[in-house]
Amino acid sequence: MSLESSTAAAGVAARELATWSGARRRDALHAAADALSAAADRVLDAAVEETGLTRQRLEGEMARTTGQLRLLGDFVADGRDRPVVRSAGAAPGGGDIVAVRVPIGPVAVFAASNFPLAFGVLGGDTASALAAGCPVVAKAHPAQPETARLIEEAVVPALGGPAGTFAVVHGGADVSLALVRAPEIRAVGFTGSAAGGRALMDAAAARPDPIPVYAEMGALNPVFVFPSALDDERWPATLAAAVTGSAGQLCTKPGLVVVPAGEAGTAFADKLAAEVAETPVFDRMLTPSMASAHAAWRDRAPGADGEATAPDGGAAPFAVRVDGAALDGELLEEHFGPTVVIAQSTVAGYGELAARLEGSLTATVLAGDGDDDAVRALLPALVDRAGRVIYNGVPTGVAVVDAMQHGGPWPAASGAFTSVGTASVERFLRTVALQNLPERLAP
Amino acid sequence: MSLESSTAAAGVAARELATWSGARRRDALHAAADALSAAADRVLDAAVEETGLTRQRLEGEMARTTGQLRLLGDFVADGRDRPVVRSAGAAPGGGDIVAVRVPIGPVAVFAASNFPLAFGVLGGDTASALAAGCPVVAKAHPAQPETARLIEEAVVPALGGPAGTFAVVHGGADVSLALVRAPEIRAVGFTGSAAGGRALMDAAAARPDPIPVYAEMGALNPVFVFPSALDDERWPATLAAAVTGSAGQLCTKPGLVVVPAGEAGTAFADKLAAEVAETPVFDRMLTPSMASAHAAWRDRAPGADGEATAPDGGAAPFAVRVDGAALDGELLEEHFGPTVVIAQSTVAGYGELAARLEGSLTATVLAGDGDDDAVRALLPALVDRAGRVIYNGVPTGVAVVDAMQHGGPWPAASGAFTSVGTASVERFLRTVALQNLPERLAP
Repeated sequence: MSLESSTAAAGVAARELATWSGARRRDALHAAADALSAAADRVLDAAVEETGLTRQRLEGEMARTTGQLRLLGDFVADGRDRPVVRSAGAAPGGGDIVAVRVPIGPVAVFAASNFPLAFGVLGGDTASALAAGCPVVAKAHPAQPETARLIEEAVVPALGGPAGTFAVVHGGADVSLALVRAPEIRAVGFTGSAAGGRALMDAAAARPDPIPVYAEMGALNPVFVFPSALDDERWPATLAAAVTGSAGQLCTKPGLVVVPAGEAGTAFADKLAAEVAETPVFDRMLTPSMASAHAAWRDRAPGADGEATAPDGGAAPFAVRVDGAALDGELLEEHFGPTVVIAQSTVAGYGELAARLEGSLTATVLAGDGDDDAVRALLPALVDRAGRVIYNGVPTGVAVVDAMQHGGPWPAASGAFTSVGTASVERFLRTVALQNLPERLAP
Repeated sequence: MSLESSTAAAGVAARELATWSGARRRDALHAAADALSAAADRVLDAAVEETGLTRQRLEGEMARTTGQLRLLGDFVADGRDRPVVRSAGAAPGGGDIVAVRVPIGPVAVFAASNFPLAFGVLGGDTASALAAGCPVVAKAHPAQPETARLIEEAVVPALGGPAGTFAVVHGGADVSLALVRAPEIRAVGFTGSAAGGRALMDAAAARPDPIPVYAEMGALNPVFVFPSALDDERWPATLAAAVTGSAGQLCTKPGLVVVPAGEAGTAFADKLAAEVAETPVFDRMLTPSMASAHAAWRDRAPGADGEATAPDGGAAPFAVRVDGAALDGELLEEHFGPTVVIAQSTVAGYGELAARLEGSLTATVLAGDGDDDAVRALLPALVDRAGRVIYNGVPTGVAVVDAMQHGGPWPAASGAFTSVGTASVERFLRTVALQNLPERLAP
């Protein structure tokens, strides 16, 4: 369908979807999960071809994607997405005021390239919008048209809603802007670059009727290593795996590791840098422009450590070593790909350093019991700068659960919301107060 | 204090307020309520002088304003604003993920002219931001500087927080924009005109780091009268009082009343129009420009019914009578002041008419048992276009309770939120997930 027909159909479908019970929405989401599972082989073939990611990684992502559809279906079937708040006798005359949740209307979703399934056209944004009872017009990532097409083909009949319940559109930046500007669209879900997210936000804010853009735009994801963690032999390898997994193409990839000044810290930094540098070269990044950007960063980064040779379109992992005092400018920005900045600083200086960081999806602490006081002193700064704070773990791996917060202060996200977990559904609901309405008339 | 000093101090104060317990925040809000009560006489004198509203009306508003501070204080003391969500064992390795709420940071509040107390510098936006633990820089309405100054003088010492916890600034549009652009400000609360709200939204969206603007911008507040309600003698006078109360200067004033075509409907419309027209002339509106706009609307409105003479700066109440088919353009826009559009339409045509309305704070149904089927048919359209749906009541009077929704689809509000009631606190909190963090380190 053309963009115009898709958004027009979504506008009509919204009225019917607003009448769907939680059970009906669950059935639709579960049917979509089943249909995607049934089509898994050909979808995975296309995704491997279009992304260069390994089949094993994409199989895991497929399980997560269908699991997410089922989980959100169960969540809304219970009515947990629509808590009813009753203020008994609060209306003049003694009637009740009852606050109910209703779907916001058609949602535009922009598929991310780095998770072709879990953040693709039927990823978390689409699943949570459908769970809320909102039709979705999803734009495929331009690098992954066939993956998106196969998903659409499998899922549309399974959902069973009216025409316009779910549609996939294709195109470049002009189509993206037209989709955000379409009058029927009431909200936007986006996962991608800061520049891409900002362009959509600007278009949405300039509409005659501005609409919210829920944009998740990646992050630096700093890791602070405390002295008692320096002897823990698992961390250098675990961190290096988080930096280089999926060729470093995760929005939660740790991009900055801060270790204590001094000998033990230097030894830890050496090990981490070596683990990263020794990771086998990746033949391919998601897109040629990502590969070029990674290579260009290697060329201009101060103190870059690691092999710099990779095939065209591929990526050689490397670490950048700097003194904490030198952390500034580009060293504090996200660099997509298998690369990390390792900085050394006195532990007393961690707070000042954290306060200079931009908002981030995550912030991580690696520590032992002996570091409690120092960790306590740093935590408020991390809570202030991040959407998720991890203790003795790595930030990659985003659990699809009630308590997940996948978002963070600007520029990690466009606002205070989560794009992963059951709370992601809230984005696509609004509240209506029914004042003095007799029970027999309640919708 | 200058704007720059106020926002800088708020930025520093935010760190301390983020550590305040719910009980500490309750104590601050209750102390503010006590201090405002103690200063009530001189604040009311100033407000009467600066607004032209009656002392009786302002005394009621004072009670609501202090009640709101106390209610929100009690709400956060209980921790009800910060539900904790725990996903046990959800972290890799078996640790928990725990979602907690934290304050968003300094908030800019713009006082409305029509509620100099309840939506003034210490009104609902300020109360809910302080309740959330956010410092506030409030801009006084330019027409009410002394009211704002007296409130600031009374309340700042009572709050007892660090410098920057609450400050009032004064000025015109340049100061408003500078406040929205101040780097420390993390969110904006606004009640006022659509043009004013949009200007702040545009400035906030153009920041290097866009911030949310919670703007409540008034509405048409349509009322649909069904056949069984036509004989209820209380409605014409009750509606007329809602149209003309406070000289029609309420954002929930019913601006459009739709009555059935036919004789009984015409009789009802006649009575309502007469009740409005016979309301005594108001000597003064809130500002001279509001009075001019009201008079100009009277001059160009088709079918205007009522005395048109009012003193300079005052307002003569009048009704505008039209056929439902003629409802279009300016007839479907909000007109501040003691004026209402009365339209007649077949009941079967109500749905089509409702679908053409812009988003509104409220939509009201006046009906009897015999109208159930027709009301049921109309309700989905009203839920779609309004933040609050009232059955057999008037939209004026906004209860400060848990279930209140004071907001609505664009252009009634800038997004899906309520600016009144306990749920208004949510605007100024964000969620942080703590992953695998030991209990002993929890903030």
